[in-house]
Amino acid sequence: MQRATQKKKHRTRVAFQGERGAFSEEAARRILGEKIEPCPKREFDEMFEAVIRDEADCAVVPIENTLAGSVIKNYDLLVDYDLEIIGELVLRVAHNLIAPKGTHLRSLRKIYSHPVALAQCEDFLHKLRLEIPSLEILPAYDTAGAVKLVVENGRHDEAAIASRAAATTYRAQILAEGIESNPQNFTRFFVMARPDRRGSVRLKTRSREVKTSIVFRTTNKPGALFHALEAFAKGKIDLAKIESRPIVGRPWEYSFYLDFMGDRNAPAARRALASLTMVAESLRIFGSYPRAE
Amino acid sequence: MQRATQKKKHRTRVAFQGERGAFSEEAARRILGEKIEPCPKREFDEMFEAVIRDEADCAVVPIENTLAGSVIKNYDLLVDYDLEIIGELVLRVAHNLIAPKGTHLRSLRKIYSHPVALAQCEDFLHKLRLEIPSLEILPAYDTAGAVKLVVENGRHDEAAIASRAAATTYRAQILAEGIESNPQNFTRFFVMARPDRRGSVRLKTRSREVKTSIVFRTTNKPGALFHALEAFAKGKIDLAKIESRPIVGRPWEYSFYLDFMGDRNAPAARRALASLTMVAESLRIFGSYPRAE
Repeated sequence: MQRATQKKKHRTRVAFQGERGAFSEEAARRILGEKIEPCPKREFDEMFEAVIRDEADCAVVPIENTLAGSVIKNYDLLVDYDLEIIGELVLRVAHNLIAPKGTHLRSLRKIYSHPVALAQCEDFLHKLRLEIPSLEILPAYDTAGAVKLVVENGRHDEAAIASRAAATTYRAQILAEGIESNPQNFTRFFVMARPDRRGSVRLKTRSREVKTSIVFRTTNKPGALFHALEAFAKGKIDLAKIESRPIVGRPWEYSFYLDFMGDRNAPAARRALASLTMVAESLRIFGSYPRAE
Repeated sequence: MQRATQKKKHRTRVAFQGERGAFSEEAARRILGEKIEPCPKREFDEMFEAVIRDEADCAVVPIENTLAGSVIKNYDLLVDYDLEIIGELVLRVAHNLIAPKGTHLRSLRKIYSHPVALAQCEDFLHKLRLEIPSLEILPAYDTAGAVKLVVENGRHDEAAIASRAAATTYRAQILAEGIESNPQNFTRFFVMARPDRRGSVRLKTRSREVKTSIVFRTTNKPGALFHALEAFAKGKIDLAKIESRPIVGRPWEYSFYLDFMGDRNAPAARRALASLTMVAESLRIFGSYPRAE
């Protein structure tokens, strides 16, 4: 608690979901630098709450993964909280086999990780099992938590699968790196801050290209989305992502999450957004931010 | 193996991913009736393979969940395999606390399930822990597998969280039902068959409304999606879902997955699809099917 409120150090306080060493913490260090004050939270909404209450300067929020798709819960939280997107990062999710220092690959008897991570490393685990037939593969709550567990146990026959950051956090050793079966495993994160405090967060990576994220609702009429997009087509604005989501309790009505290239204040974007407000039932602009490199 | 090939019984052979009693099996029984021949598969692609090789008449494929979003892996498999969508089902995902017969709620010491299911039942588990402070909540590979485990262990202090179908499959008892925190938990499934064999699969639920699912690619030009949608707007065709996905290895190019109301052979749909082929780089129609009720 004391560390979290020592603002004089000028360390950016970053809320993320998961244990220390989670992939989200790795993402935070990538975009905000090593000198951050980590504020790990158990649930996604606790990250948003922490920023609203100024217990953290920003939150690093996973929003979609190339293998698993959009993180729907976080799209909902974008709508529920008045935070602004100020940055974007794409992190390659690389899994590592991690054990207490002094452990040898051949002496392993148990490997722990989250079932999703275990499934993503299936080929590696299959080969290892051919060498060590007695090897047990065991599910755990989360990847970084599994590293914490095997380090606490302190045995030399147990390992966990997690991020490189988890190995650093728990001072453990990487026995094998990049053990995921599919290398096309990327997670996109947003950096979210309070609109009145965004100046206090400095991003390390700054791209020159700017992207804007919005959500809008259309009425239940054929062609409603088409007319909504007309505004962007006329302004020759590139769309980077579109996704529809049904509105709970309002059958046949949809929210559209849309990312487009350019700043919200550029003339073409201003015109497109103004036209959009005429055909859409509601519009919310989440922010303009430097595009991930 | 013998049972799986006894076609004279006229039981529809249904491939699904997961253990017997998985939510996908519950979905299969809902849309195809109780008299099915279940063909459980470990991986999603094995379901598609089984249908291609005529080891199963159809596959029941989860495609999106209201809390977790689209099942990207299965969208990719739709593209990779030449199967047709012949049916759609929306299943409410209800979690149950399941134990060997004769077990009492108060005597529980351990509860097993997949971490996603455990997270979805957090409120219930939190309350139960207040009553039973020594209760351990333990992760498992999958929900139905957790029921299988506690039934095999045969103790009266262990339970699992899974579907109603899992309780039936393993002849276990439901101690508490509908224990999920958020009741808005629905999964949408497609029934997929070989185009030349679709006549052999009879759906139990038949809606009069028809939906069509397609995927198309556009060139990398601003307004490309807008022009693609023009065809549907002119025909006054209702869109039910749209989702963009980046094409791996082709930066700035996208696939669009689109569902629209109506049969692919209706005049307005034929015209719209014909116009779409003029502006899109590629188009694939996955099928027209009765809309889920």
